[in-house]
Amino acid sequence: MIHVGIVGGSGYTGSELLRILIAHPKVKISVITSERFSGTNISEIFPSLKDLINIEFKKLSPEEMSKDCDLFFLALPHKVAMSFVPLLLKNKKRVIDLSADYRIKDKDIYKRWYFEVHKSPELLKNSVYGLSELNREKIKNARLVANPGCYSTSIILALAPMMKSGLIDLDSIIIDSKSGISGAGRKLDLSFHFPEAYNGVRGYKPTGHRHIPEIEQELSLLADSSVKISFVPHIVPMSRGILSTIYVRANELIDTNELIDIYKKYYQNEFFVRILEKGKLPDTHHVIGSNFCDIGLEVDTRNNRFIILSAIDNLVKGASGQAVQNMNIMYNLKENIGLENPAIFP
Amino acid sequence: MIHVGIVGGSGYTGSELLRILIAHPKVKISVITSERFSGTNISEIFPSLKDLINIEFKKLSPEEMSKDCDLFFLALPHKVAMSFVPLLLKNKKRVIDLSADYRIKDKDIYKRWYFEVHKSPELLKNSVYGLSELNREKIKNARLVANPGCYSTSIILALAPMMKSGLIDLDSIIIDSKSGISGAGRKLDLSFHFPEAYNGVRGYKPTGHRHIPEIEQELSLLADSSVKISFVPHIVPMSRGILSTIYVRANELIDTNELIDIYKKYYQNEFFVRILEKGKLPDTHHVIGSNFCDIGLEVDTRNNRFIILSAIDNLVKGASGQAVQNMNIMYNLKENIGLENPAIFP
Amino acid sequence: MIHVGIVGGSGYTGSELLRILIAHPKVKISVITSERFSGTNISEIFPSLKDLINIEFKKLSPEEMSKDCDLFFLALPHKVAMSFVPLLLKNKKRVIDLSADYRIKDKDIYKRWYFEVHKSPELLKNSVYGLSELNREKIKNARLVANPGCYSTSIILALAPMMKSGLIDLDSIIIDSKSGISGAGRKLDLSFHFPEAYNGVRGYKPTGHRHIPEIEQELSLLADSSVKISFVPHIVPMSRGILSTIYVRANELIDTNELIDIYKKYYQNEFFVRILEKGKLPDTHHVIGSNFCDIGLEVDTRNNRFIILSAIDNLVKGASGQAVQNMNIMYNLKENIGLENPAIFP
Amino acid sequence: MIHVGIVGGSGYTGSELLRILIAHPKVKISVITSERFSGTNISEIFPSLKDLINIEFKKLSPEEMSKDCDLFFLALPHKVAMSFVPLLLKNKKRVIDLSADYRIKDKDIYKRWYFEVHKSPELLKNSVYGLSELNREKIKNARLVANPGCYSTSIILALAPMMKSGLIDLDSIIIDSKSGISGAGRKLDLSFHFPEAYNGVRGYKPTGHRHIPEIEQELSLLADSSVKISFVPHIVPMSRGILSTIYVRANELIDTNELIDIYKKYYQNEFFVRILEKGKLPDTHHVIGSNFCDIGLEVDTRNNRFIILSAIDNLVKGASGQAVQNMNIMYNLKENIGLENPAIFP
Repeated sequence: MIHVGIVGGSGYTGSELLRILIAHPKVKISVITSERFSGTNISEIFPSLKDLINIEFKKLSPEEMSKDCDLFFLALPHKVAMSFVPLLLKNKKRVIDLSADYRIKDKDIYKRWYFEVHKSPELLKNSVYGLSELNREKIKNARLVANPGCYSTSIILALAPMMKSGLIDLDSIIIDSKSGISGAGRKLDLSFHFPEAYNGVRGYKPTGHRHIPEIEQELSLLADSSVKISFVPHIVPMSRGILSTIYVRANELIDTNELIDIYKKYYQNEFFVRILEKGKLPDTHHVIGSNFCDIGLEVDTRNNRFIILSAIDNLVKGASGQAVQNMNIMYNLKENIGLENPAIFP
Repeated sequence: MIHVGIVGGSGYTGSELLRILIAHPKVKISVITSERFSGTNISEIFPSLKDLINIEFKKLSPEEMSKDCDLFFLALPHKVAMSFVPLLLKNKKRVIDLSADYRIKDKDIYKRWYFEVHKSPELLKNSVYGLSELNREKIKNARLVANPGCYSTSIILALAPMMKSGLIDLDSIIIDSKSGISGAGRKLDLSFHFPEAYNGVRGYKPTGHRHIPEIEQELSLLADSSVKISFVPHIVPMSRGILSTIYVRANELIDTNELIDIYKKYYQNEFFVRILEKGKLPDTHHVIGSNFCDIGLEVDTRNNRFIILSAIDNLVKGASGQAVQNMNIMYNLKENIGLENPAIFP
Repeated sequence: MIHVGIVGGSGYTGSELLRILIAHPKVKISVITSERFSGTNISEIFPSLKDLINIEFKKLSPEEMSKDCDLFFLALPHKVAMSFVPLLLKNKKRVIDLSADYRIKDKDIYKRWYFEVHKSPELLKNSVYGLSELNREKIKNARLVANPGCYSTSIILALAPMMKSGLIDLDSIIIDSKSGISGAGRKLDLSFHFPEAYNGVRGYKPTGHRHIPEIEQELSLLADSSVKISFVPHIVPMSRGILSTIYVRANELIDTNELIDIYKKYYQNEFFVRILEKGKLPDTHHVIGSNFCDIGLEVDTRNNRFIILSAIDNLVKGASGQAVQNMNIMYNLKENIGLENPAIFP
Repeated sequence: MIHVGIVGGSGYTGSELLRILIAHPKVKISVITSERFSGTNISEIFPSLKDLINIEFKKLSPEEMSKDCDLFFLALPHKVAMSFVPLLLKNKKRVIDLSADYRIKDKDIYKRWYFEVHKSPELLKNSVYGLSELNREKIKNARLVANPGCYSTSIILALAPMMKSGLIDLDSIIIDSKSGISGAGRKLDLSFHFPEAYNGVRGYKPTGHRHIPEIEQELSLLADSSVKISFVPHIVPMSRGILSTIYVRANELIDTNELIDIYKKYYQNEFFVRILEKGKLPDTHHVIGSNFCDIGLEVDTRNNRFIILSAIDNLVKGASGQAVQNMNIMYNLKENIGLENPAIFP
């Protein structure tokens, strides 16, 4: 059994980790922390978990929490996580950090997008960007996995097969993403007050979303060349799910079937990436509650562009599910243990 | 392994059976039938199941489908199921029928509410009403389980502890239920066309819903006395979930804590029934995707009434989940195998 | 032109007053106040009003705001309103108060339900409960109109024709209401954070909602007899609309057509109350954005009960629309000026 | 009074015309036709209109319907409208056609996208593309107005100020639109069955949506140069609203304030087009139920692109509201009569 701790577990990535790990046959949840809810039973904060796990939120120092755990999932806000990670690593614990703090390799870029000096830049070199399908080998032995952002996961998986193909103009990438509101977290905000969000769709941060640097970093690595993207995220009135629609200029015009074949081949051994047949497009509804990433493709022959659409559940493949997938990899377990279930539909 | 067949599997109870059974460690899905989609792969009809099960819908006679299965789940419309059941039973198969055809013991009452003469009334005597918690012993050896209606499940579980208690006036039961729209099935209807249903709540069939006779039958059995109810179902703009709010006149005024204790005791050994603490009320969101029934209670001392609220997922505990729970009972398996997962929240 | 002021205009009843009054041909909005947003243009807070009205929120004393207005709409929280009303009345202004502060005639009952001593109990005697259809004559000359609660409006209109009819057992009234979330106001609360509210329906305050005393007061007046009710409000995942389902024991069993005729006669001159034909039931979607109250009826002959359902838009007929209707009455205008529009459907 | 007829009035554009025209002070609705619902009162089909207009759907020949009307709104399906228009024009009636039949000037392009030979190509020359803000002068005297598609309206208004500016690369236009489901009409379809659509967002027709030819035609006219676009429409779980996010390569990099100023100047006299201030982005919720088009802008300096977002209500500015605006223009009325109301928010 892997003894895991969840640090900062009172938000949605925390509850989603609990939902998945409670049913995971190789895991014991030993500790869950929350400053705010210290002393409160989990089921007070997440009534859906009532009678399924009997554990209290605790407020613990890294030292204290380290006693009973092998692995920590950090579900803390950006900038807070980096105060915990060095201490947990020092205690020889393995860490999967769901914040952005160790995703960006260049501390200057981190500072530019997060407006804060990184507290442990020396760890950036060895942290592994936890996009499971792409970095599996490195994840196996990682001490510190930087779990990717939700948008980033949906986008990098959708573009990976193109980056070294020579088929696309790397300077032409435009990404339009649509997210359910759980992606904004559990913190109260007028924009996400139900009556303000129910009947509308809107864009936000059209040139400055913080997932941009990690997406550009990983795409550049894949392409072996500097890549920049335009990325506009949008809020859609639903709880879960991200759909990313990606537009790229084709260097060479292949047909839709050929494009699909390239993707199928690239992901042929992947359980969680499903390449849809010609004429099918992904729907977030078909992945809700699951760890799948569905990808659909079509060539726009009139304009020499490829249209790539991908759908994930932002809390599963986009956060806690991928974190568990990474844990499975780190502990040499079957990669989909605890994550085999299909989406909840309808 | 139990070899199961799903008859009429292209609707929502069919897809929900698939979702649950795919992950069930003791089940092999051998056959799935659909007249309409015969020859089509399941993932064409339910893209959420892509790559998780590779099986086609078939059109088969009861004789043909019997060859490879031990147990059948019938997810057919009312009145159609009773054409299949006698033949499957004759072939020594066990049957869990999700339609209403074998729920009502009295063929005249069946005719009055379903406007059709029953085709195999001789089977009614031995069919078992599959409310797992209440009829567990009979279900164990049943050949034919009549799986309860979704509203009925939420209501009977909520009232069972009261029926023999002497605490309530049996003539005073009023039930106001609110259901998500998946309860209406996958059949197209203007009322359930998205734009017509999104922004509204409405009642329907305020005196004539077909779950009334089965609810009255089971409550009467529990009370050992004839019980009649007023029941108004409502449609709420969400996909899943039923909340039933029940109002009964108290014969004797106990306080809310005492009432809760009676319920806790009654359901003390039940995994799937959760009695909420004083001051908590059920929310369908906390049971979505799970087989739980949450019950909350409060005494209205100003009016000498008990207020009982229960929440289930109509497709899980209200249909396919309870069907699998019944299968587990019939095959002496742990009752919650395949059904342990918490709700999807948020 | 009536010069109106809106006090406390940054919430949903404030924005709804603005929406209606901007298009009202006999009204000039002279002042709008908000402590919190003083100095901010309205369109910053309500972008839907951009370019339609150019006015800033101000922070003003009752003295200051009185200068430019004939009539005030108070869209303040309960308990705050009663600090303003006496001063505005002293300045000879007419007041329509959307809070609960002047609805309840008995100061002891006010204290029992609102946990606060009333600050101007001497005004309660002359305040008029502003249910337009029932108190039209008194509203005409009122100085102070206490605009009814949203639930209260949907319930009292639905029950009024019964209260003196002798047809029902006054001791048997059970009311199950379902409300959209705008009814909870614009104040942030985890319960109304989008992801917590999107997929669920739930009850709340099953024995203690604060609209109970005003409903009982008005029903008792109508019945000329003391009336008590059981009332359970519910939250439904939509922005607007209240559906109230009411169950009463019949003293005398008439048929549905007769019951409908009694209602049609009672409301024969009312523009805003629509009695539906037999077999039709109200849907909140059909009144959204309008000042209508739709009422549907059915006799439950099996149980000697009447089932009464009513639908309103909680922000229009349940708040700001009825407030404008009351203003129209107070100023001898055609009662539906500014309120003639049908619902937004779909 | 303008005597208007609505042909094919039982869908959503029909009901929206009714909603607007019922309150229009210069209009009398003389005739409304529907083959399917001939003989049925409107309020049977649209209960929201009960008691507001007492008129029956009729099945009439163009000859018969012409007797009582000056102007016709055609809310018929594509390909059906062109059977009516020539006859109505022959009867000297003015026509606003909400279908696509007279939008595309080139009959070959019409055939390519609509798979049907045009039945009255001789009328295409004189039909006016009814984008009110851009073609106002021609609309004034038009006999036949081809009312634009919903997506087209949101896109052309958002791009018009750029087309002759020289500021953008005309070969770089990418449009990602998100629509509420009322845009798909009232026809039943499994994709729009509530439980299939509630929890998901999805793209469709990523290279072949039929609004492409009219958008390219109008943009080319504005640019005086052949323009081609990539356009991917998406379905979002809400009833109304379209948000279009547009990405274009900048020839010359101006800053966001300059870009906004260009738009403000271009639309300075337009009531219905609102250019948002820097840092604000449009939200469909802020235009629901209104005829406004909100446009937000931001320069992506990292990538030399302009990001343009526009929001409309697809049934109002995207269909029936713009049709009424066009009628107002044709009859020399104030352009916003009947259309002044702000959005319904929340």
